[in-house]
Amino acid sequence: MTEFGFINSIKTLCADLHKNGFEGIGDDCAVFEFSERESLLFTTDLLCEGVHFLRHATSARELGGKALAVNLSDIAAMGARPVATLLSLSLPAEATEEWAAEFMEGYHALSKRYGVALIGGDTTRSQRDIVISVTAIGRAANDHIKRRSEAETRDVIFTTAPLGGSDAGLRDILDGRIDTPLADLHRNPCPEIEKGQWLGARHEVHAMMDISDGIASDLRHIMTASHKGAVIDLDRVPVTEGATLKQALCGGEEYRLLFTASFEAAEQLARDFERRFRTPLYPIGRITEGAQLKWREHGTEVELDWKGFTHY
Amino acid sequence: MTEFGFINSIKTLCADLHKNGFEGIGDDCAVFEFSERESLLFTTDLLCEGVHFLRHATSARELGGKALAVNLSDIAAMGARPVATLLSLSLPAEATEEWAAEFMEGYHALSKRYGVALIGGDTTRSQRDIVISVTAIGRAANDHIKRRSEAETRDVIFTTAPLGGSDAGLRDILDGRIDTPLADLHRNPCPEIEKGQWLGARHEVHAMMDISDGIASDLRHIMTASHKGAVIDLDRVPVTEGATLKQALCGGEEYRLLFTASFEAAEQLARDFERRFRTPLYPIGRITEGAQLKWREHGTEVELDWKGFTHY
Repeated sequence: MTEFGFINSIKTLCADLHKNGFEGIGDDCAVFEFSERESLLFTTDLLCEGVHFLRHATSARELGGKALAVNLSDIAAMGARPVATLLSLSLPAEATEEWAAEFMEGYHALSKRYGVALIGGDTTRSQRDIVISVTAIGRAANDHIKRRSEAETRDVIFTTAPLGGSDAGLRDILDGRIDTPLADLHRNPCPEIEKGQWLGARHEVHAMMDISDGIASDLRHIMTASHKGAVIDLDRVPVTEGATLKQALCGGEEYRLLFTASFEAAEQLARDFERRFRTPLYPIGRITEGAQLKWREHGTEVELDWKGFTHY
Repeated sequence: MTEFGFINSIKTLCADLHKNGFEGIGDDCAVFEFSERESLLFTTDLLCEGVHFLRHATSARELGGKALAVNLSDIAAMGARPVATLLSLSLPAEATEEWAAEFMEGYHALSKRYGVALIGGDTTRSQRDIVISVTAIGRAANDHIKRRSEAETRDVIFTTAPLGGSDAGLRDILDGRIDTPLADLHRNPCPEIEKGQWLGARHEVHAMMDISDGIASDLRHIMTASHKGAVIDLDRVPVTEGATLKQALCGGEEYRLLFTASFEAAEQLARDFERRFRTPLYPIGRITEGAQLKWREHGTEVELDWKGFTHY
């Protein structure tokens, strides 16, 4: 069974459970409206040695930052501000005190940078592998929260940065070139906390998520949740220097934002964004009627059978 | 470094982070007061194969129940009602779909029993070991929340059930006797959800926590947080049939409640509890001035150097 297959079976099994006011599985975060004005948001991610990282190819400090960053990215992807995390760490006997202290330094530095509290966790031994579990909590005005299900026909599809660099960096690491700039980029993702909140406050932004499995895969989540189709202009997809177009479309762990915005307001939004962040928005396609994802090159439809990202 | 040493170093490192309204590390749960009347509570636990369980000695269904139960116990231990969980599951290739489905059955059955929503999670491959991470969220009236720091001199120390059975069951399992009643008890802890909420609503109950490392260790957390001492009457400690007094004092993973209550109100509390739950409260000692934990047998102080529980 695939990961998505298993998640769907869990969703079906648990459909009869009381919701207790929580809006559950389906977006980057679960949402709990705690007042008429505000909500808390919840997300969790597990990082396993040998699956999500290789111990020899990453420093403990980088790993501490990345474990937090990937969770904060999910909070930002719904337009919320990260406020607190819980951290569980399972370490084999040979992971030294020094390793653990360095890991915590990386975790702490990013927590401090984004003003996030560490409110709890668990530390245990493991038999062999390092395992890290982080749960992040965000906070947002109810009318700033962006969901995958809100895309509208004619919306412009945007991303916030050139893509493919993280995947190219991962290939470098797997080939033993652990010191390249792209390998560094892969190990040190930069969650778009301020951008996510800024976009959350803009009503012309409709659906939003972060790019964790590659847009070829992630965009389908927006399409499915919104019951829409999409067309992507391949010649408009921004590609990180040193990466390929395929990596830009299918590479995972980008932690950049993917969102749709009203066609009429899109140009003004892009201008305001650039003025605020000194970096452009990249319009890469449009939301359409129907359910198909189509690719276009110089205005002509082309066939692609590229899929999203799978972990090594 | 010990687990508590590492937790203390994290606490020190992270003391400069913004709290964002969260009351953090130190109790069974972190607390976020979302209104003048109510709070959300947060706790997380990580279960690792070979450290917290042996795959051959537990069914997937039991493990699904236990992974949830140990977290719900932390919620109950502060007087709150569990409302939602996030579940992350890391499985090696040889853990079959059938195994995963059975695990989820156990998790779902206990979620349904206590009316708890499953609102998110993560599923990944692991290299070798099964790892399970659960974050549980509780909800309580602000004035029902019980903390470790609220014990008062002269308080009566209570526990809610005979102790030692879980540790005796673990010894059975480690000796290869996986089918004994105590082994079964060890694999199927019963979190005291209703009792915790009932005790939360009683103002004569002061400090409360659940017994996860054995009262010889856990009681010290209440003493330290409350700046108090304690004396335990060994002849009043209830011992599960088949377990020893040492196991009752030092055995971990009991997931029963340990709490202190006003001396004047203690007898009435115990009567009301027994009427409500058809099972007695066990008064096992008293909170004292000072910082020492003393043991008494037939009214005479005795020396004990028993410590709390360490995972196999």
